[in-house]
Amino acid sequence: MSRCLISQLEVQGFIERCMTAVGTKAHHARSLAEVLVEGDHRGHYSHGLNRMDMYVKDIQTGICAKDGEPEVEKESVATALVDGKNLLGPVVGNFCMNLAIKKAKEVGIGWVVAHGSNHYGIAGYYSMQALKENMIGMSFTNTSPLVVPTRGKECTLGTNPISVAAPAKDGDSFVLDMATSAVALGKVELHDRRGDTIPEGWGCDAEGKLTTDPKRVLSGGGLLPIGGSEATGGYKGYGLGMMVEMFCGILAGANYSKHVRTWKVTDRVANLGQCFVAINPENFAGGFNDRMSDLMSIHRGMEPVDSDSPVLAAGDPERTNMKKCEEIGGIPYHINVVKYMNNCAEKIGVSPLLPCDKLVPM
Amino acid sequence: MSRCLISQLEVQGFIERCMTAVGTKAHHARSLAEVLVEGDHRGHYSHGLNRMDMYVKDIQTGICAKDGEPEVEKESVATALVDGKNLLGPVVGNFCMNLAIKKAKEVGIGWVVAHGSNHYGIAGYYSMQALKENMIGMSFTNTSPLVVPTRGKECTLGTNPISVAAPAKDGDSFVLDMATSAVALGKVELHDRRGDTIPEGWGCDAEGKLTTDPKRVLSGGGLLPIGGSEATGGYKGYGLGMMVEMFCGILAGANYSKHVRTWKVTDRVANLGQCFVAINPENFAGGFNDRMSDLMSIHRGMEPVDSDSPVLAAGDPERTNMKKCEEIGGIPYHINVVKYMNNCAEKIGVSPLLPCDKLVPM
Repeated sequence: MSRCLISQLEVQGFIERCMTAVGTKAHHARSLAEVLVEGDHRGHYSHGLNRMDMYVKDIQTGICAKDGEPEVEKESVATALVDGKNLLGPVVGNFCMNLAIKKAKEVGIGWVVAHGSNHYGIAGYYSMQALKENMIGMSFTNTSPLVVPTRGKECTLGTNPISVAAPAKDGDSFVLDMATSAVALGKVELHDRRGDTIPEGWGCDAEGKLTTDPKRVLSGGGLLPIGGSEATGGYKGYGLGMMVEMFCGILAGANYSKHVRTWKVTDRVANLGQCFVAINPENFAGGFNDRMSDLMSIHRGMEPVDSDSPVLAAGDPERTNMKKCEEIGGIPYHINVVKYMNNCAEKIGVSPLLPCDKLVPM
Repeated sequence: MSRCLISQLEVQGFIERCMTAVGTKAHHARSLAEVLVEGDHRGHYSHGLNRMDMYVKDIQTGICAKDGEPEVEKESVATALVDGKNLLGPVVGNFCMNLAIKKAKEVGIGWVVAHGSNHYGIAGYYSMQALKENMIGMSFTNTSPLVVPTRGKECTLGTNPISVAAPAKDGDSFVLDMATSAVALGKVELHDRRGDTIPEGWGCDAEGKLTTDPKRVLSGGGLLPIGGSEATGGYKGYGLGMMVEMFCGILAGANYSKHVRTWKVTDRVANLGQCFVAINPENFAGGFNDRMSDLMSIHRGMEPVDSDSPVLAAGDPERTNMKKCEEIGGIPYHINVVKYMNNCAEKIGVSPLLPCDKLVPM
């Protein structure tokens, strides 16, 4: 199979063109395009260009605001509550993360939560912003209910991601960016399309019973929290998903749990809750970056079980993907994604992603 | 089987007597006794009276300091770095958590890390202190290496717990207190003693291969991170264990990863790193407690898969255990634990735990 190679700049410009064509403010469109391109660049295609049509539709239908700016509602030197004004998630996310970093420069930590937000792309995009200031960053968001709690049979929690980034020496970093579900819904869909079964512990059926049949998960069932069944520790993943909800919907006064609108159903405003944190290591023990590098070296340098599969640190798979993009000079996309997005663009009078004929083997 | 019922006050006094007999300051002994009794009261016997001999030995050998107080080394309105002065973990933990709460009252958040600490009992003891002030509390500690990272075969991380407590209405609360390993070592030891196999995903052998034989885990193998194998998402638990290490050993400048001394080997000072956080919901959206109660009701009120196993919220199993203790008028201990501790007490001239003949069926 081959993929269509497109430069990052071209994808960035294309998304900006599409979003502004439906009335998005220029700098909001740029913020969204940057997060989506970064998603693809890091290899998380489920959170990149692939989702552009959803954002275009959100602006077209007016379910997401195209004008205005987020506003601080309540503030201390170290905290803030932000009203996202129903703007695009990345607009809210950038605003909050900047504010958290500013506070962390002054008092060592900034803890900022927002209500009135929308899907913000990869959580790691925000936590990583702290790295530029040599700080630790964190980001959390609630999402549409897709996860079934331990012992239950109803989806009441989103895949509620946790992202934590920490700087090491010489530009190296630890970047954890993980859903609190065992896997993403996309992975179950992929297995279904291929006709494969899924490993036990990924999902359950409509009766809450563990299943290895992806169709049962997708038709009325749900994803399991990290850890899978109760016997293998799924209640821990369930607890972590609740923790994220507490930091997001509950602390921010946004929608939460099953009150968040159903995934892909955009009949009402999302009002997602999100949480952004920056921590300045300079307020703690000196030599943070050196110790962080040593911690990662201990792991990367360890003898692996299988010599073809080295022990990694969080962020390493994404680093490998970005290196590959640099080598081949762009991001490799499935041709169907490019065609689909070009169709969307045509409908709103936007010039297509080009070229479509530069194929690279995958 | 029956258990020996002993009042909380008696256990509290007994631990204080033993600790002061070997020279521990009175209020340090009280702090330790309170955490251990609370561990047992909540049903976490692995972190209660059962470990008293370890603390007695640490003071006797001088590997843990019996005098002095923790000191703030660096401070902002919202953060602090504390030198635990090699004092008992609960002394350091109480000092840091009080400081975090004080800061959260002033500026909405307090983030405090300590180096030079020791084992501090259940992590939830510290996060729960924030509940009394109607705040969110968090506590993290690194521990002796027992967990093998995904793809590796060497223990480089502790069971590094995460505890998060959040207040709801009418004294109700969410209390997550979980190791970032799939299970605690004690559970594997218990299966071994019973001659049972363990579920796949709990541990690996010395070659890093998943095993269901507890003996292989205990002889040169290790625990797996939450999520188990790589296929079922164990790399997420590995990432969370690293996150805890980053907040503890790395941020505080304490020992970290495989530099932490081996479990049960007290040949040198522990120098553990710990992290304590308090967040004041009043700095964010009003109505926090109501939403928190609703979030828990959504889950507790859900129809369960099995009507005998209701869906719980984090902290509910401990609540049930405490209620049982209240009903029977004390904490039920295995008679062997009582006998063992009374032997320890006799050696240091301390009067025994009494009575030993009030048995309750279990």
